[in-house]
Amino acid sequence: MSNLPESLAGKTVSVLGGTGPQGRGLARRFAAAGLPVVIGSRSAERAAATAAELAAATGGDVTGADNPGAATAGDLVVVAVPWEGHGELVAGLAAELTGKVVVDCVNPLGFDNQGAFALAVEEGSAAQQAQALLPASTVVGAFHNVSAVKLEDPEVTSVDTDVLVLGDVREATDLVQDLCATIPGVRGVYGGRLRNAHQVEALTANLISVNRRYRSHAGVRVTDL
Amino acid sequence: MSNLPESLAGKTVSVLGGTGPQGRGLARRFAAAGLPVVIGSRSAERAAATAAELAAATGGDVTGADNPGAATAGDLVVVAVPWEGHGELVAGLAAELTGKVVVDCVNPLGFDNQGAFALAVEEGSAAQQAQALLPASTVVGAFHNVSAVKLEDPEVTSVDTDVLVLGDVREATDLVQDLCATIPGVRGVYGGRLRNAHQVEALTANLISVNRRYRSHAGVRVTDL
Repeated sequence: MSNLPESLAGKTVSVLGGTGPQGRGLARRFAAAGLPVVIGSRSAERAAATAAELAAATGGDVTGADNPGAATAGDLVVVAVPWEGHGELVAGLAAELTGKVVVDCVNPLGFDNQGAFALAVEEGSAAQQAQALLPASTVVGAFHNVSAVKLEDPEVTSVDTDVLVLGDVREATDLVQDLCATIPGVRGVYGGRLRNAHQVEALTANLISVNRRYRSHAGVRVTDL
Repeated sequence: MSNLPESLAGKTVSVLGGTGPQGRGLARRFAAAGLPVVIGSRSAERAAATAAELAAATGGDVTGADNPGAATAGDLVVVAVPWEGHGELVAGLAAELTGKVVVDCVNPLGFDNQGAFALAVEEGSAAQQAQALLPASTVVGAFHNVSAVKLEDPEVTSVDTDVLVLGDVREATDLVQDLCATIPGVRGVYGGRLRNAHQVEALTANLISVNRRYRSHAGVRVTDL
């Protein structure tokens, strides 16, 4: 039914904030790849509704739950919530996320009439904030720069982008690189330690500028690999 | 003799810090493209020696000067000095750089036994620091992520990377995009305002991590353009 790598066999992926564009787009692609997916949301009802849509669209195994339920259900847990609620959400799920790989894709950005800009984060980055709040989990940063529009578009059969995967534990970054590769066209590239996550999160502001100038849904490829 | 765009016809490009790997690599490519190039260095003798090497290697018009002389000679002035001396150098050349487009490619990075990491810059980025110190110049950020090894290697006939060009003045970023395109393989892509330069400078730390992991000289391409 799928060509999942051995590292992901039997694993469930939960997506917290799975009813927003980025989370929904990632969930759709993971489900299409044959991974069991649990959509998490503050509202279990909204999660269930999005899950039903994605199950119908992909033929995959997608269910919904509130965020704590999704955090409990996932072997890998993707955090795709808005930056505003990031710290509070993550701190409240420390027990559920213990021992797990947590994939943070949150971009702390502000917006004004000149476009997007990077916000300062006390811990350095959203990923480092998550790691500080989840000392018993392994946080990996990934999927920051992937276009939600491309992920959600069923006509896009290959998403033309690399994903920079950031983390301090090789086993976890390798696993998340495998997760990246379940999305057609996407390549997971190790991009450094968590302390270098800020600029990858912030680069999304530049891609928003690119998208405005060129009317694109830009991604990033790393050359010479 | 060359296919320079009209915007660069008759223009001289000076490269401050042109005896270091990044500056030398850019100077070599600009000279090969047919642009008159002036190498700047603290030492006029070392600048002249590097200029003679590059002139011989490229058949181009390359001369050397001390940094103030090079700043005076250039219509476009590229700043490719180490971060440590950046502020002092730039501040000391405010008169020479008045009215000019200044292309800052400096990456404020630190290094320890875990590799490279981004340094905090009071003004936000090296490019913003330069703009703060040069209120009568137009600062554009560019060439942050281009491999000096690739630029300097005469066997590399096409440098497989985009250059994100950052700035607040459209005419200046357009001109620097044209400058990027004089290097075979390189495409200049508008990447946002100067306030979003930090993460592009800092991304070089990630590319250093990539290079260590994959034994590469990585660059970055923007997709969907």
